[in-house]
Amino acid sequence: MHFQVITLFPEMIDSAMNTSIIGRAVKNGVISVETVNLKNFSCNSYGSVDDYTYGGGAGMLMQCEPVYNAYLSTVERLENPARKPRVIFTTPQGRVLDEKIAAELAENEDLIFLCGHYEGIDERVLEEIVTDNLSIGDYVLTGGELPSLVMMDAISRLVPGVLNNKESAETESFNNGLLEYPQYTRPKEWHGKEVPDILLSGDHRKIELYRTREAIKRTAERRPDLYEAWLKNRGIW
Amino acid sequence: MHFQVITLFPEMIDSAMNTSIIGRAVKNGVISVETVNLKNFSCNSYGSVDDYTYGGGAGMLMQCEPVYNAYLSTVERLENPARKPRVIFTTPQGRVLDEKIAAELAENEDLIFLCGHYEGIDERVLEEIVTDNLSIGDYVLTGGELPSLVMMDAISRLVPGVLNNKESAETESFNNGLLEYPQYTRPKEWHGKEVPDILLSGDHRKIELYRTREAIKRTAERRPDLYEAWLKNRGIW
Repeated sequence: MHFQVITLFPEMIDSAMNTSIIGRAVKNGVISVETVNLKNFSCNSYGSVDDYTYGGGAGMLMQCEPVYNAYLSTVERLENPARKPRVIFTTPQGRVLDEKIAAELAENEDLIFLCGHYEGIDERVLEEIVTDNLSIGDYVLTGGELPSLVMMDAISRLVPGVLNNKESAETESFNNGLLEYPQYTRPKEWHGKEVPDILLSGDHRKIELYRTREAIKRTAERRPDLYEAWLKNRGIW
Repeated sequence: MHFQVITLFPEMIDSAMNTSIIGRAVKNGVISVETVNLKNFSCNSYGSVDDYTYGGGAGMLMQCEPVYNAYLSTVERLENPARKPRVIFTTPQGRVLDEKIAAELAENEDLIFLCGHYEGIDERVLEEIVTDNLSIGDYVLTGGELPSLVMMDAISRLVPGVLNNKESAETESFNNGLLEYPQYTRPKEWHGKEVPDILLSGDHRKIELYRTREAIKRTAERRPDLYEAWLKNRGIW
């Protein structure tokens, strides 16, 4: 998987993508990340890439031409330049990321991320280059870098070879429509609280039944929306 | 606003919080960020903070004692140690962040974030210290650092003095229940596409009506769920 990120803050992308599990995958060559600095594509002598909004409004907008030229430079670097790449614009005005979308995106060889800043980007260049408007949730952020990092993280961990056996736990939230059950490690007693007996029983069938029950209970308590969907999917409700 | 972040990867937090708009707010002293490195609170000679999961399972779990001691060290640094601080655990098993939650959290003086890693954290210490289980969305990530950064960004931009006039645009997605309308900047024509005439008219009332219509149209197309909620809230449906 090869990521390219068009951004005004490449150092933020580089730093996060070189840390922890994703950093290891980059080092091992399983994924790669390139940043394209929008500032290098300014069309004026001030080096700026933004201008006032037509029709008024407090914010500044990123202009078409710098964004378009940055995009062209990413296309030149594609493994397979003949194929139109997926270009993801991180915006609250998009579909909201979930595990299904992440899995689908993880099947691409190349992905280009476009990070907005200021009040946004001129609509005309978005129409021309963006294939996916994608949001990480219903809240507003100061820029598109963190959402891009979140998307690349969610996608990367589904790319074969990124997680090792210790990490690729069998059960994770959402993959069966339920939240994960509570978990415990040593010591057996801590601050007067004991690990539930059943987990020490060695009876794997009983442990599985217990964990499923706890997962259902937790989902019902914390996310009634997911619980309802889970019941419906199983024809229970 | 004073953030403290308990994490295995403090460099990831520091780098992002020193960049762009949030970095400026840190420099200006409007917000401050401290990291607490969990590795310094290991209870064994190997320096590890994780152990196997009781009852079996592929992943490793963070232990109670290192997490608890890291938490105690954050409490010591509070502006007002008498008041129990909000401790946010970033987990897919929590309430999902939205603008309302971000606004509510922005009213605190101190916030402590606990970033999970590996398969998670022993449930007993979470029960004891965590006040808010908070998720950024229904997808799985490799660790809690990116969700913490997303939450701190969404919260910070609502803290007075963080955004300047150019940035604190009057209209933003979600604050009236609609997605934002398309926007345009110079030049007037780009790749054969013209800026909509009405935005050049200087008629502010017409421009506002046009933008509202475009916002409604976009919300209906891209987020039927938000559109339905917006109609219901206004008694239209």
